[in-house]
Amino acid sequence: MKRFLALSDLAREEVLDLLALATRLERQPEPRAAAGKVLGLLFFNPSLRTLASFQAGMARLGGSSFVISPGQGSWQLETKDGVVMDGAAAEHVREAIPVLASYADVLGIRAFAGGADLAADLADTSFRTMADLCPVPPVNLESAIDHPCQALADWKTMDDLAIPARGGRFVLSWAWHPKALPLAVPAAVVHMAALRGMEVTVLRPEGYALPEPVMARTRQAAALSGAHVLYAKSWGAPQCYGQTTDDLAAEAALRAGLRDWCVDESWFKPAVPNARFFHCLPVRRNVVVADEVLDGPRSAVVQEAGNRMWVQMAVLHRLLCGGT
Amino acid sequence: MKRFLALSDLAREEVLDLLALATRLERQPEPRAAAGKVLGLLFFNPSLRTLASFQAGMARLGGSSFVISPGQGSWQLETKDGVVMDGAAAEHVREAIPVLASYADVLGIRAFAGGADLAADLADTSFRTMADLCPVPPVNLESAIDHPCQALADWKTMDDLAIPARGGRFVLSWAWHPKALPLAVPAAVVHMAALRGMEVTVLRPEGYALPEPVMARTRQAAALSGAHVLYAKSWGAPQCYGQTTDDLAAEAALRAGLRDWCVDESWFKPAVPNARFFHCLPVRRNVVVADEVLDGPRSAVVQEAGNRMWVQMAVLHRLLCGGT
Amino acid sequence: MKRFLALSDLAREEVLDLLALATRLERQPEPRAAAGKVLGLLFFNPSLRTLASFQAGMARLGGSSFVISPGQGSWQLETKDGVVMDGAAAEHVREAIPVLASYADVLGIRAFAGGADLAADLADTSFRTMADLCPVPPVNLESAIDHPCQALADWKTMDDLAIPARGGRFVLSWAWHPKALPLAVPAAVVHMAALRGMEVTVLRPEGYALPEPVMARTRQAAALSGAHVLYAKSWGAPQCYGQTTDDLAAEAALRAGLRDWCVDESWFKPAVPNARFFHCLPVRRNVVVADEVLDGPRSAVVQEAGNRMWVQMAVLHRLLCGGT
Repeated sequence: MKRFLALSDLAREEVLDLLALATRLERQPEPRAAAGKVLGLLFFNPSLRTLASFQAGMARLGGSSFVISPGQGSWQLETKDGVVMDGAAAEHVREAIPVLASYADVLGIRAFAGGADLAADLADTSFRTMADLCPVPPVNLESAIDHPCQALADWKTMDDLAIPARGGRFVLSWAWHPKALPLAVPAAVVHMAALRGMEVTVLRPEGYALPEPVMARTRQAAALSGAHVLYAKSWGAPQCYGQTTDDLAAEAALRAGLRDWCVDESWFKPAVPNARFFHCLPVRRNVVVADEVLDGPRSAVVQEAGNRMWVQMAVLHRLLCGGT
Repeated sequence: MKRFLALSDLAREEVLDLLALATRLERQPEPRAAAGKVLGLLFFNPSLRTLASFQAGMARLGGSSFVISPGQGSWQLETKDGVVMDGAAAEHVREAIPVLASYADVLGIRAFAGGADLAADLADTSFRTMADLCPVPPVNLESAIDHPCQALADWKTMDDLAIPARGGRFVLSWAWHPKALPLAVPAAVVHMAALRGMEVTVLRPEGYALPEPVMARTRQAAALSGAHVLYAKSWGAPQCYGQTTDDLAAEAALRAGLRDWCVDESWFKPAVPNARFFHCLPVRRNVVVADEVLDGPRSAVVQEAGNRMWVQMAVLHRLLCGGT
Repeated sequence: MKRFLALSDLAREEVLDLLALATRLERQPEPRAAAGKVLGLLFFNPSLRTLASFQAGMARLGGSSFVISPGQGSWQLETKDGVVMDGAAAEHVREAIPVLASYADVLGIRAFAGGADLAADLADTSFRTMADLCPVPPVNLESAIDHPCQALADWKTMDDLAIPARGGRFVLSWAWHPKALPLAVPAAVVHMAALRGMEVTVLRPEGYALPEPVMARTRQAAALSGAHVLYAKSWGAPQCYGQTTDDLAAEAALRAGLRDWCVDESWFKPAVPNARFFHCLPVRRNVVVADEVLDGPRSAVVQEAGNRMWVQMAVLHRLLCGGT
């Protein structure tokens, strides 16, 4: 594993492997596993659990850590590109991240949502930019839209408590708080629960729906969790069924926002390791499905088409020659 | 030792044992003694010596440490029970302490006096509540009314300087400072000096008497230090001697605040290990003396009463049969 | 090495030795070299690189570190002597430095320029006072007028990049910034480049000349870098040549500020290890040259004078007896 930025970056098998390792380390200490290694921790936002548990955890593996908190004993850091830095920030992350990485073997970064630009926060733009600047393995200590360490801990807790995975019901409920809190944890845990195979319900007041990309990713994870086959097919919206100008316009409008429903390798992360891709053909490449899937070992589309002949021969045989 | 919250929690032998160990470690490093162990340090207030000396000390024993400072790189923590947490504090110590303890093998806590409620501060309510929430051994890094690490260091310093214990004179003097400082250190060191067997004097201006419970504990420690026998007996106030209504009312008023002059096991901490409890009987249980003392191995009260016969027989013998 | 406060405290050979060691450690880790040792880090000012690289570096040598940041989780510290401490600072460095040093094997200190008294900052008064209070080896983490760790890193970087030393050209250019920044890095690096043997140019707008003592030290380092002989001689200012009252007054005025052009051992730091001191004699002791130089093994002045006879005999020989 070269980075730990989001559970959705990992195949389901990799998540299960991490959970098994966590349980093993809980039972059998490995006090020399990280001997001589250094964990850098860069906190743009406050922390209690994340700071303490990473420092304690690194120490229990025999390694060391350091903490940098911009604005608290360290310079304020600029994260935007192309900015004229004549304000409070004395340094840009384009320097700070590689510098800190040059002292560390792994670099953890906490950077909460900016809270102004939902699209940027949903894309985790700022955090992903920093992670991409990092020449050593980066770890997400909570970003604008994800908190994979929390999600992984919650998964382990449900395992420890023998809470059912497939068939288990997971309700995420909104609750009142004096200020508007980030989306990172709710987004992370609904996805995690879906990935674990649970039935996910979000209970929330009017106006507090989680953003559609979060729910989409969650539904995708739930649907694909443990899947052996992903069978893709586009179809028209039944609610716009018809061929009048209005029907067609309504369907086109609905379809307009759905360009990213194009199956690529990332869809298979929650599936079983050798999950196969099925499509009846003909298929529009990189519209319905990406080349990487069609040209890779998952694709069963040619075999499907080839089997058309054999199954149809069987039909004919039964029809013509009799039998059950 | 399962916790280190106050010198007054320890038997004198335990304090002497700690001091001997401190001197041994000063002379013979044990760089692997805490290998693989983690010390959590939770600072609600600033520190220089405590932070640096605990981190350095843990490192010199081969262990590691982490620091959490609520409000400085970590969330503000609520300490009051039953509060509606719609203010600045994002988390309650009822969660934070067990969480931090789950990462640590020992948890140090610094929490200064609230400064508003003297009775609560004298009882160290807030700190004791946190210590009681802690499933790993808690250490007092300075609380509202105690600073046992400082007191222990001062005791060692006096030993190092060959300052006499029994018979030594210890003067604690108040001094001016731009603001009203906490009672923790004065309360801790007068008790420590008394426990060490020194004659303690508090030099202070009008209005700056240390609170009566502090002085009471100190007097108790001084009186009991190295004692072999504690002989308890209630008596009337000579200054109210008499049976007029006024005499009786005055005595009752004086006695009213003294309910805690009830001998329990804690009184014996400064005494020699097998110090004995004496009382002439009859005795009001849990008024004059606690069950735990009367029913335990210290109690000599039945033996005392039994010896009444033998000593009186001897008197009779002398009186009746002659002899010196 | 008992302290690391300034490159100018070190002989050139010592600097080269440090650089060679740095490169060796970069190639061959020594993860037990500082086992059981503790590095204290006292930061009066913010840090990113210094904090992270010292903590990571100490860990990579097998040692531990702690951080104290006065005013951020630790008391504010007073640095002035003789002050009545009735302001914000709760403790004086006269206590804090020895205390922290008692927990540490090495103590790093960062203390930026006060910015009010140029002479005091140029003399690094505040930092030197703290370093002198430190019973364990002190390290300069950036002071009012120096940043030797930065300078040493820059030297290594130029070596790594095969940038020529003798004959290389080093241009330090001023650049705009929203606030007036300290002189520590420019002062440190021009001296370092000169010490490395480079030709140093400072490019800067009117009014931004580096203070004369900085440039003087730099010119001295440049001139002496790798020198085998320092030949000292005072002379009159050609621009004031003449004997009129005006001429004499002008020369005296010019000379008045130059009392510290008195050669002492520190001048030889950039020279080769056995560099020799030459002077034609007669020489005013401790005006032109310090006793320590004249009375030490460097001095060639008597030998020079003795050689007068032999060389003059040779002249006479040629003059009187002929030959080439």
